[in-house]
Amino acid sequence: MTEKADIGVTGLAVMGSNLARNFARHGFTVALHNRTKAKTDALIKDHGDEGDFVPTTTAEEFVAALERPRRLLIMVKAGEPTDAVIAEFAPLLESGDVIIDGGNAHFEDTRRRERELREQGIHFVGTGVSGGEEGALNGPSIMPGGSAESYGSLGPMLEQIAAKAKDGKPCTTHIGPDGAGHFVKMVHNGIEYADMQLIAEAYHLLRAVAGYSPAQIAEIFRTWNDGRLDSYLIQITAEVLAHTDAATGKPFVDVVADQAEQKGTGRWTVQVALDLGVPVSGIAEAVFARSLSGHAELRAASRDLPGPRGTTLDEKAAARFADQVEQALYASKIVSYTQGFHQIQTGSEEYGWDIDLGAIASIWRGGCIIRAAFLDRITAAYASRPDLPSLLSDERFAQEIGAAQEDWRTVVAAAVQHGVPVPGFSAALAYYDALRAERLPAALTQAQRDFFGAHTYRRDDREGTFHTLWGGDRSETKAG
Amino acid sequence: MTEKADIGVTGLAVMGSNLARNFARHGFTVALHNRTKAKTDALIKDHGDEGDFVPTTTAEEFVAALERPRRLLIMVKAGEPTDAVIAEFAPLLESGDVIIDGGNAHFEDTRRRERELREQGIHFVGTGVSGGEEGALNGPSIMPGGSAESYGSLGPMLEQIAAKAKDGKPCTTHIGPDGAGHFVKMVHNGIEYADMQLIAEAYHLLRAVAGYSPAQIAEIFRTWNDGRLDSYLIQITAEVLAHTDAATGKPFVDVVADQAEQKGTGRWTVQVALDLGVPVSGIAEAVFARSLSGHAELRAASRDLPGPRGTTLDEKAAARFADQVEQALYASKIVSYTQGFHQIQTGSEEYGWDIDLGAIASIWRGGCIIRAAFLDRITAAYASRPDLPSLLSDERFAQEIGAAQEDWRTVVAAAVQHGVPVPGFSAALAYYDALRAERLPAALTQAQRDFFGAHTYRRDDREGTFHTLWGGDRSETKAG
Repeated sequence: MTEKADIGVTGLAVMGSNLARNFARHGFTVALHNRTKAKTDALIKDHGDEGDFVPTTTAEEFVAALERPRRLLIMVKAGEPTDAVIAEFAPLLESGDVIIDGGNAHFEDTRRRERELREQGIHFVGTGVSGGEEGALNGPSIMPGGSAESYGSLGPMLEQIAAKAKDGKPCTTHIGPDGAGHFVKMVHNGIEYADMQLIAEAYHLLRAVAGYSPAQIAEIFRTWNDGRLDSYLIQITAEVLAHTDAATGKPFVDVVADQAEQKGTGRWTVQVALDLGVPVSGIAEAVFARSLSGHAELRAASRDLPGPRGTTLDEKAAARFADQVEQALYASKIVSYTQGFHQIQTGSEEYGWDIDLGAIASIWRGGCIIRAAFLDRITAAYASRPDLPSLLSDERFAQEIGAAQEDWRTVVAAAVQHGVPVPGFSAALAYYDALRAERLPAALTQAQRDFFGAHTYRRDDREGTFHTLWGGDRSETKAG
Repeated sequence: MTEKADIGVTGLAVMGSNLARNFARHGFTVALHNRTKAKTDALIKDHGDEGDFVPTTTAEEFVAALERPRRLLIMVKAGEPTDAVIAEFAPLLESGDVIIDGGNAHFEDTRRRERELREQGIHFVGTGVSGGEEGALNGPSIMPGGSAESYGSLGPMLEQIAAKAKDGKPCTTHIGPDGAGHFVKMVHNGIEYADMQLIAEAYHLLRAVAGYSPAQIAEIFRTWNDGRLDSYLIQITAEVLAHTDAATGKPFVDVVADQAEQKGTGRWTVQVALDLGVPVSGIAEAVFARSLSGHAELRAASRDLPGPRGTTLDEKAAARFADQVEQALYASKIVSYTQGFHQIQTGSEEYGWDIDLGAIASIWRGGCIIRAAFLDRITAAYASRPDLPSLLSDERFAQEIGAAQEDWRTVVAAAVQHGVPVPGFSAALAYYDALRAERLPAALTQAQRDFFGAHTYRRDDREGTFHTLWGGDRSETKAG
């Protein structure tokens, strides 16, 4: 009889397989299970020497191989496949065992599953895992929800396999009860969409307005990566833009079809934000930009619509413009994160999760797709003031965005005059200007609602709600 | 024994009561029912002389009062109250009877109810009704879904009570099967949000950039209402802006709290559009602008963020600017409707509704909140080309937006430079520029996705999907 395994992984596609190897490489004994045995065998054959694996065939054998309380990590497709696997294993488990779902589940599904399994005494831990295949193997950012008790048993293992930030801290923490982990992972992905859209707009401007080639823009991104924009996404942007297509000799970015796909977490982020009443315009524009890019027929039918004639800047003006684009990108990025953290804060209040926002920023510093030096600043912002109402209220961010705002406006105005679409930059700037506005025209909107629907309004100078008799003598009545 | 009623209305709050009176005024005999008898009695007492009403007390009495096949209009709150009323009445009905839900139900609920009742042989007609209280009484725009057979029985009555467009045509038609009516009503409301947001931005610009007073802006809106922007919402904007608060002597719009509320159909529109992959950025920004306006604490914490110093234009420049704002408003409005009709078209394909887009524009010409001369143009666009891929492909709209685009850019640039938030104008312009772009930076986005997640990409010059070995020698492999 082999020794009992510390953890079991079922679902050995590349993410599950890499997480299993990551656990094994850190000295844990890992039981393996897959619907078809071939993947288990392949993993043992190719990587069996990396650590202690216990290959199993049946569900019963798999469960029997686990040390109690059992820790069972499910890495299958979100939705029905996850429910099917839970239904298969839950009857074989005992009170105190822990099921971990490391897929990209919707947090509402996670809440439901956690509730159902809790009745059986089983801890269900919905966990966000970011970093792709490479992160899963070498250190992802891990966002586990579920009970505090389950984190007591599972946390030390996750802290071993997680990425480490530059200060050595592991990129994982107990996010909060039930669906908190998957909620935070969802918003992480939404922010990732926004980051990518802003980068795309910066590239587009440098190309269409400043007249730089992809290779030159790659250099600019490399320079940016040495500054405050230092991040994984900026780094790989430089790599992609510097890449030449072997088949044609053209810049790689010029042969790739300009239709961006999506898998759904960005869309979820916006849908949930709408329910929570949180404006996440930057994320929404990023999701829309991807879907718009895919509407080939609509685009083909619209290509002849008139726009400004494009003249690019001279060399000196181009260099100056590149600096301004950096300011615009940085300012817009602050807004994206402000919106994303606002959503996490609101979700935490709505669902009673008591999420530590600074800890979220901290565990995103390594392993995940949006890892960036920038997250050190967010961590610091919440460390110095845990009850920060918004990232824009942080002194340093406020100072930085204030210093950037002139260039930001110049860049958006230039984009508009050149006919370059910058939905992300503009939405971020509109959010900034709306938030700081002394007075918004929402007063007119509310008055219109009272006019056509008797929806009433409040006044700035008195308590209560009021209605004006628009169809009558236009006197005001107190409605409540 | 009184004569049998042509239709019965249950739920006699103001909308139900006014629809009942509208039917009676058109010569129909109307059975009345309400959970509490008091509302029925009040209606008879106050308006019993307007036509033939049959007041009833119990559900059985109500159903017995109806001519067969029975037509029973439910006017209660969306959600559970609607389900409760259906559960109460359905067992009393017979095959061939028609239940009409005139509330603002989510179209997915309508689809479910239609399916369930169809099994009993009952026709369920989810119907959008727009026009508020006044419209319900004097002629709303009515958007019935459900079976074609039910429209055969119900349609002639609806055509009587509906608003009439200027050419005399009734503002109702059979939208399509099951949830089609409520879907179209939902998008109508989404467009209404966008229209209102664009008007709010135009007002804000005329005030903050051009320096006009609310009374002066009311005059400008009145002028606009004599031109191509002729519409109910522009008209009531002028009314609201011209109104003086009796208590303070101030412009009314200056005493109303600048926090706009919402009831949910705008949010639904965006959530559904995200599922359908339709970019509705204008509607989304309108929804976000309302929720942002309500975040009083966040706004208070952000008021000191720096912005440009505002200097307003001189008289001559202001007049010129007002004309440019009209162009920007009109161009943005074309985009809102393009997005909304794209959503209806996509929903129709997704659910097999076969919706006639021109007919939708036609029945919105009267009765509803977004009624406007503009809708004649949309009707004409689809009449001349029923398979129009997008409103922007219509020759006349393309010509108009093309003529407006320079001023539109000037206005957005001015807003950005003055620090006035114009999320709606900018989102619309970004959509326009993205649609007409020869090439979008979505190629970079997709390349990044391939880099960090092996999500593959397509090429412009060859069939198939590809993956570059970013972590290896960066050669390209064929993925499918």
